[in-house]
Amino acid sequence: MNFELDQTYQFFGKVDQTNPSSYDTYPINVTAEDGEKLIVRLPAGASVQLNKIYYFETTAIQFKEKIHLRADSYTIINQMILEDDRKEELMRSFYQYAPINLKQTRHKIEAILNQIENKVIKDITWNIYEKYQNDFYLYPAATKFHHAYISGLAYHTLSMMQLAEGFLTVYPFLNRDLVMAGVFLHDIGKVLEFDTFEGSEYTIKGRLIGHITMGATEIQMVAKELGYEDSEEAMLLGHIMISHHYHGNFGSPKRPNIAEALVVYFVDTIDSKICDLGEELAEVQVGQLSAPIGVLDKERYYKHSLTNIKKSE
Amino acid sequence: MNFELDQTYQFFGKVDQTNPSSYDTYPINVTAEDGEKLIVRLPAGASVQLNKIYYFETTAIQFKEKIHLRADSYTIINQMILEDDRKEELMRSFYQYAPINLKQTRHKIEAILNQIENKVIKDITWNIYEKYQNDFYLYPAATKFHHAYISGLAYHTLSMMQLAEGFLTVYPFLNRDLVMAGVFLHDIGKVLEFDTFEGSEYTIKGRLIGHITMGATEIQMVAKELGYEDSEEAMLLGHIMISHHYHGNFGSPKRPNIAEALVVYFVDTIDSKICDLGEELAEVQVGQLSAPIGVLDKERYYKHSLTNIKKSE
Amino acid sequence: MNFELDQTYQFFGKVDQTNPSSYDTYPINVTAEDGEKLIVRLPAGASVQLNKIYYFETTAIQFKEKIHLRADSYTIINQMILEDDRKEELMRSFYQYAPINLKQTRHKIEAILNQIENKVIKDITWNIYEKYQNDFYLYPAATKFHHAYISGLAYHTLSMMQLAEGFLTVYPFLNRDLVMAGVFLHDIGKVLEFDTFEGSEYTIKGRLIGHITMGATEIQMVAKELGYEDSEEAMLLGHIMISHHYHGNFGSPKRPNIAEALVVYFVDTIDSKICDLGEELAEVQVGQLSAPIGVLDKERYYKHSLTNIKKSE
Amino acid sequence: MNFELDQTYQFFGKVDQTNPSSYDTYPINVTAEDGEKLIVRLPAGASVQLNKIYYFETTAIQFKEKIHLRADSYTIINQMILEDDRKEELMRSFYQYAPINLKQTRHKIEAILNQIENKVIKDITWNIYEKYQNDFYLYPAATKFHHAYISGLAYHTLSMMQLAEGFLTVYPFLNRDLVMAGVFLHDIGKVLEFDTFEGSEYTIKGRLIGHITMGATEIQMVAKELGYEDSEEAMLLGHIMISHHYHGNFGSPKRPNIAEALVVYFVDTIDSKICDLGEELAEVQVGQLSAPIGVLDKERYYKHSLTNIKKSE
Amino acid sequence: MNFELDQTYQFFGKVDQTNPSSYDTYPINVTAEDGEKLIVRLPAGASVQLNKIYYFETTAIQFKEKIHLRADSYTIINQMILEDDRKEELMRSFYQYAPINLKQTRHKIEAILNQIENKVIKDITWNIYEKYQNDFYLYPAATKFHHAYISGLAYHTLSMMQLAEGFLTVYPFLNRDLVMAGVFLHDIGKVLEFDTFEGSEYTIKGRLIGHITMGATEIQMVAKELGYEDSEEAMLLGHIMISHHYHGNFGSPKRPNIAEALVVYFVDTIDSKICDLGEELAEVQVGQLSAPIGVLDKERYYKHSLTNIKKSE
Amino acid sequence: MNFELDQTYQFFGKVDQTNPSSYDTYPINVTAEDGEKLIVRLPAGASVQLNKIYYFETTAIQFKEKIHLRADSYTIINQMILEDDRKEELMRSFYQYAPINLKQTRHKIEAILNQIENKVIKDITWNIYEKYQNDFYLYPAATKFHHAYISGLAYHTLSMMQLAEGFLTVYPFLNRDLVMAGVFLHDIGKVLEFDTFEGSEYTIKGRLIGHITMGATEIQMVAKELGYEDSEEAMLLGHIMISHHYHGNFGSPKRPNIAEALVVYFVDTIDSKICDLGEELAEVQVGQLSAPIGVLDKERYYKHSLTNIKKSE
Repeated sequence: MNFELDQTYQFFGKVDQTNPSSYDTYPINVTAEDGEKLIVRLPAGASVQLNKIYYFETTAIQFKEKIHLRADSYTIINQMILEDDRKEELMRSFYQYAPINLKQTRHKIEAILNQIENKVIKDITWNIYEKYQNDFYLYPAATKFHHAYISGLAYHTLSMMQLAEGFLTVYPFLNRDLVMAGVFLHDIGKVLEFDTFEGSEYTIKGRLIGHITMGATEIQMVAKELGYEDSEEAMLLGHIMISHHYHGNFGSPKRPNIAEALVVYFVDTIDSKICDLGEELAEVQVGQLSAPIGVLDKERYYKHSLTNIKKSE
Repeated sequence: MNFELDQTYQFFGKVDQTNPSSYDTYPINVTAEDGEKLIVRLPAGASVQLNKIYYFETTAIQFKEKIHLRADSYTIINQMILEDDRKEELMRSFYQYAPINLKQTRHKIEAILNQIENKVIKDITWNIYEKYQNDFYLYPAATKFHHAYISGLAYHTLSMMQLAEGFLTVYPFLNRDLVMAGVFLHDIGKVLEFDTFEGSEYTIKGRLIGHITMGATEIQMVAKELGYEDSEEAMLLGHIMISHHYHGNFGSPKRPNIAEALVVYFVDTIDSKICDLGEELAEVQVGQLSAPIGVLDKERYYKHSLTNIKKSE
Repeated sequence: MNFELDQTYQFFGKVDQTNPSSYDTYPINVTAEDGEKLIVRLPAGASVQLNKIYYFETTAIQFKEKIHLRADSYTIINQMILEDDRKEELMRSFYQYAPINLKQTRHKIEAILNQIENKVIKDITWNIYEKYQNDFYLYPAATKFHHAYISGLAYHTLSMMQLAEGFLTVYPFLNRDLVMAGVFLHDIGKVLEFDTFEGSEYTIKGRLIGHITMGATEIQMVAKELGYEDSEEAMLLGHIMISHHYHGNFGSPKRPNIAEALVVYFVDTIDSKICDLGEELAEVQVGQLSAPIGVLDKERYYKHSLTNIKKSE
Repeated sequence: MNFELDQTYQFFGKVDQTNPSSYDTYPINVTAEDGEKLIVRLPAGASVQLNKIYYFETTAIQFKEKIHLRADSYTIINQMILEDDRKEELMRSFYQYAPINLKQTRHKIEAILNQIENKVIKDITWNIYEKYQNDFYLYPAATKFHHAYISGLAYHTLSMMQLAEGFLTVYPFLNRDLVMAGVFLHDIGKVLEFDTFEGSEYTIKGRLIGHITMGATEIQMVAKELGYEDSEEAMLLGHIMISHHYHGNFGSPKRPNIAEALVVYFVDTIDSKICDLGEELAEVQVGQLSAPIGVLDKERYYKHSLTNIKKSE
Repeated sequence: MNFELDQTYQFFGKVDQTNPSSYDTYPINVTAEDGEKLIVRLPAGASVQLNKIYYFETTAIQFKEKIHLRADSYTIINQMILEDDRKEELMRSFYQYAPINLKQTRHKIEAILNQIENKVIKDITWNIYEKYQNDFYLYPAATKFHHAYISGLAYHTLSMMQLAEGFLTVYPFLNRDLVMAGVFLHDIGKVLEFDTFEGSEYTIKGRLIGHITMGATEIQMVAKELGYEDSEEAMLLGHIMISHHYHGNFGSPKRPNIAEALVVYFVDTIDSKICDLGEELAEVQVGQLSAPIGVLDKERYYKHSLTNIKKSE
Repeated sequence: MNFELDQTYQFFGKVDQTNPSSYDTYPINVTAEDGEKLIVRLPAGASVQLNKIYYFETTAIQFKEKIHLRADSYTIINQMILEDDRKEELMRSFYQYAPINLKQTRHKIEAILNQIENKVIKDITWNIYEKYQNDFYLYPAATKFHHAYISGLAYHTLSMMQLAEGFLTVYPFLNRDLVMAGVFLHDIGKVLEFDTFEGSEYTIKGRLIGHITMGATEIQMVAKELGYEDSEEAMLLGHIMISHHYHGNFGSPKRPNIAEALVVYFVDTIDSKICDLGEELAEVQVGQLSAPIGVLDKERYYKHSLTNIKKSE
């Protein structure tokens, strides 16, 4: 884009880098909504967060024989009132996003949670759902390996619920309420474990306590608030939470000891692996091997000619 | 039952034990169709197989002050012409049986195999199906641990197909033909590995070669007969076969390296575990722990009050 | 003892066994304080708990040509007002007991907890101490393997504190408050995990959730009550709790990631092993090998002639 | 070498690299038989295979002030009629080669296979030998780690046979025919698993099925053709094949369960390790440690002063 | 045998059991050279060692209406002067014995040790050989699992030397002196580790130090005596000693790091396994599986019809 | 420093690098006591050892228009007579050093060894102490990972003794003499295993035999010299030596089988880990994670705000 001197320009932009300077303004690198790379000058002393989206109001000024954009104001989008659709549009422009329609996903998940019949399970689950739903639909499911993009957690959760349907059909002795509530709750601690939904990193508390124990504590605290502290249901949901990684070496202090916990473990591990595998194969030409895949024991997978997926261009 | 001297009696019976004797007849223990335990005397030199069903024609005679049944003739049911329903009825009387309706199971499996579209896969699969279908619907899936009863293999196969449906829905990049043919074929080598469908034991060839390599050789031989020796499809089916135990320590010389092989592995391991878990929980009172379960790392599972299964009386 | 007909007898006794009967009284086996084995008859419909101590008031009656004791009343000691010394005396008569003086142990532990300087740590620790102190001084540290006797938990905790002193001397960078509070708290969840202090067994909740997660939730709940929910100290104590088994396979969802957690792990594992080793060697003659010791990788230890311990007679 | 303009030059050369060009000829890098590095220009559209030997007929031309060789014709040696000795001479010039005399090796292996007495074993073995002998004497035994050079498979096989002699002497209960046929057959699947004998790489079928299952299928197919499908001998040879890596993690679906299979495993693993060790020590000065050796658990071996091998200059 | 009252009887016998008595003589159970089970009465206060051979001079006396043999004298054979052949004959009568001719074995081992050319290796090896040769030819190679019979160590050593010949032929870079001396020395510490050659058990020193460290210390002490303390040869022999179990978990503090140590490990492990396998198969009928074999990962081995060994009757 | 032509300069310096030259002198890089980097010219043919401290007497000369220092003499400090304090001062200038006062450390260790009461243990320990004390106070405890600096071995040994005090207090059945002698002896083989105390590397003997077996042999040899060859004490000290790494995979041919050996193992592993952890945390800012720590399973440790250690500037 060509900027004309002294004109004003408004736009949303993601902060990529900040550059210290001894002048009374300093330059930051910004990516605009259309992908253009811009340089914006902020007043010395002003601070912005890396990787976040801001709304910039700027004026084009001359700086050392070049035209720069001077920020007259900048507002982080968390603090702006934006419609949901516009918000999602903005984030899709700036971040990697789960390949889902968020509205439909929310609709389906809520429908499944509404089917829970057991009052204790329903109360606990909905209480936690309402408390964390904003973050739940934004956070990734992991910082790397699988579902490591915005809305990854919701995408992963819904896929698990769909897989779980198959289990409930084949094994009618399973309790549907426990399975579905367990699937919803199993990774809810991730919204506490990661620092932010964009480019997530572990917080110190995430590292020292972890989403499994944080999730179990959350369930117990909510159960207590609701008067279900000593209910069998709260104990079973807590057990599903702490056993969903199955193996002690992967963070579970207990292995599954009820059938529904085993099912939650299975659909979790399956979705983390096969979803990732599909994304890897999408990058490979037919007749070729993928790179070694971390979540699949570093095996390389072959993309045969019958695979129902094309390499994205 | 009371037997009258010199009367004749005809019945089906399973041979439980044979007892050597120095007389010119010797006694064998037989369970009749209604569960009654009988003693039948066979002529010295005659031989019957343990654990098999025979049709006995007998006469009640006096032997050392007791009434015994002397076999006038005996025919193993393999050599009799019986209607399917009568045959199934007989076997259900004498052996432990999968909890399925065999006719419906056969109908469903054939319907799924009929949906295979790829000609090479369809030809190979149906060729093997037709060759082994009699045994396929009779054999167990294992000699112990899981599905270790008559028709266990067909029961296990259908459950796996039903679970696989869920995977195909959630992950559309998977090839349905490979998954369903792979599920059908994966344990077909068991009909070669076990000596018989009732009270199966491993044959020496089963121990030294195993159902995985026997199955892979079978696929390759059939592919050669049909002119598909060098087809990608035969290779892929062979790969699904040899990788379906995933781990080298459990008999797979290769880990899954195509997505469909991974799915066959998952539905196999899931059904072997959860089907067995359901059967174990059926034996336990609500509020109690099961015995340690072999296929589930010897964990004891808790039967909570929300389990949809009652203890059988 | 000889009982005279129609005389009354009062005594404390532990219930060893109850024997159903079709009479209007039924006999129970009781061990008296002096070790004598008695038979007491209870009215049909009355119930007593196995392994518990009762105060019996009885009358000697004639029953089928023998003299039996008929219970006129019986009271479980939990419901009696007894002096501490008398209570301890009774329990020492009936149960296996840690080789400590309970009063001194309590005194020493409280002295150490009183030295905690950090207000947040002190408040959380004392709040939990006061809540659970009765059970804390009665419960064992394990149901088998090590410190599996009454007051085993307090004995184990004090030994750990004494070992920790050595670490604090050699490594001055360690924070004393965290180490000592961590040692006190580390097994507090055991009073929740076991059903009772005499002949402890795991509760279902103990099995499905476990003392580690229960302990971590307890710390977080108390911290919240005291307004320390987001304090670094609460997080660090929680981390010490969940990492004190070090290995995922032994129930810790996180390995130690602060120095003080590593120290708590070390003194815990050391005391569980060496205390048990000392008890095993006490049973062995000089010049002999012990039986394989479970907590020491099933190794057999040699009692050499320089060992400062004699075989108990 | 100096080339004179317009003169013609004929020579054998191995193609090292091809370089795209927009001219109507493009340059390729070629190594000549004497090791000289040449540049030859091919007509646009012509194609040659990397790593293969060609016979080039060229003319020296001027290209941008330098003298280049223009290919007037080029023929891959597979399509030329050459005497065996000349062929071996050429390959020794261009590729790394096993340190053996191929004629003697062939002679010794055939002599051993001729000593097989059991008709079934002899027929199966010779049938496979004759089918694959050309490749058998050219292929390496592995793509890396050990015997990864031309004729490596034959070299490895003969060493194993010589080691096996020692076993047959010390343990007379072993069956010589099974051991020697097993040694010959054990890696025959490698000629199917690798794409070519020079600079071998795994084919996709090699990766998805592997030489063990391919070899077992080959034995069974040949046995069937010869009417030995159900012979004990075919089963035993198949078992030796699939168990010769011993460990499931190394690709064997069964562990050895006959003595001769154990012997084949031992001489295979020994020769793969000690042959490689000898080659590594040949590169090391006396008094020094080797680099970590992959096939020997990454241990570094010491070359002491008593080693009967000098460092090659 | 019938004993006549007051007659004297002389015989060799092994003490099987001693039976305390309050009489002034007590009975012991003795097996005579011809296998007959006898009862001999010893004077109270006399003591004999279990499992040892004695020469008894006895008189037949009457004891409680039976005829017993009263020992007039008894001498342990260690203290008798007997010819070698007679000694071996006696031991073969009473104990399980390696299936070898001891004289020939000694002859062959000495011939091999005489071929050692390196003076340092020869001096150290012969010094130790001469010091321990009596025990060396009597001790077993293990207390159970393999070669657990008299002369087992010499039998095992010679088999290893014969296997090693094959290695030396195929891999000429190996130093023969180190290999053969290493084979002879590798288990010499067993004569120190076990308490006695008949029915060997570990001594306390054997358990706490072990034959590997005892052997290494022995080599170093002898080297020092001979003035070879700092020789490369003493170091290499010490290294072969401590690395011959290869794995740390099996008692080797170092893995092999010279080629000759690797060879000693291989021939040791091979002979311990295949010798035992041969002995197991000798007990099995053709067509049957052996019991699980401890030294072979508890695998069951199949005795096929081509096995060159008959079941002993 | 400025050097004036033809003036002489004397100084201590550590040789960092030598540079070949065709002149009749060649330059070497030297670090002086004050840290200055100098170039000194040595006569062709003269040789110095890298990493060692020398006393140089030099004259400033002109060399190619620069002033260089020509060495008129140079003496390695090993061959100079220097007071202890001066020697330590020099080494602290040139090498990384344990953070201890050497004189006090020596005093404390000797005091503890003087408290040994058992004559056999005392004689063996002091004999070895006197033989190796010079090296003992100079050598590191490892070449990397922990205590890898001068006097690291003495520092490590004293810390272990201090930790051991705590164990002796809590577990009175332990024998103090064995524990303290065991701690002193446990790593004495390191002075044999490393080539030199500055920048230690393993000798070949260190690699092939190792400090554990060398240490065990040393104890046995000294015991023999002192007439204690068959004493229980020598055996127990030998056992402590060989079991102090506990795990076979870490070089111990035996696991601890006496209580004192277990204690020596514990204080060894604890000090190697926590001492290193303290050093790592000293490098980290409060609120940050350390780098992955090798001796602590590559875990990253968090430096919380209560840590009693500041980041060194």
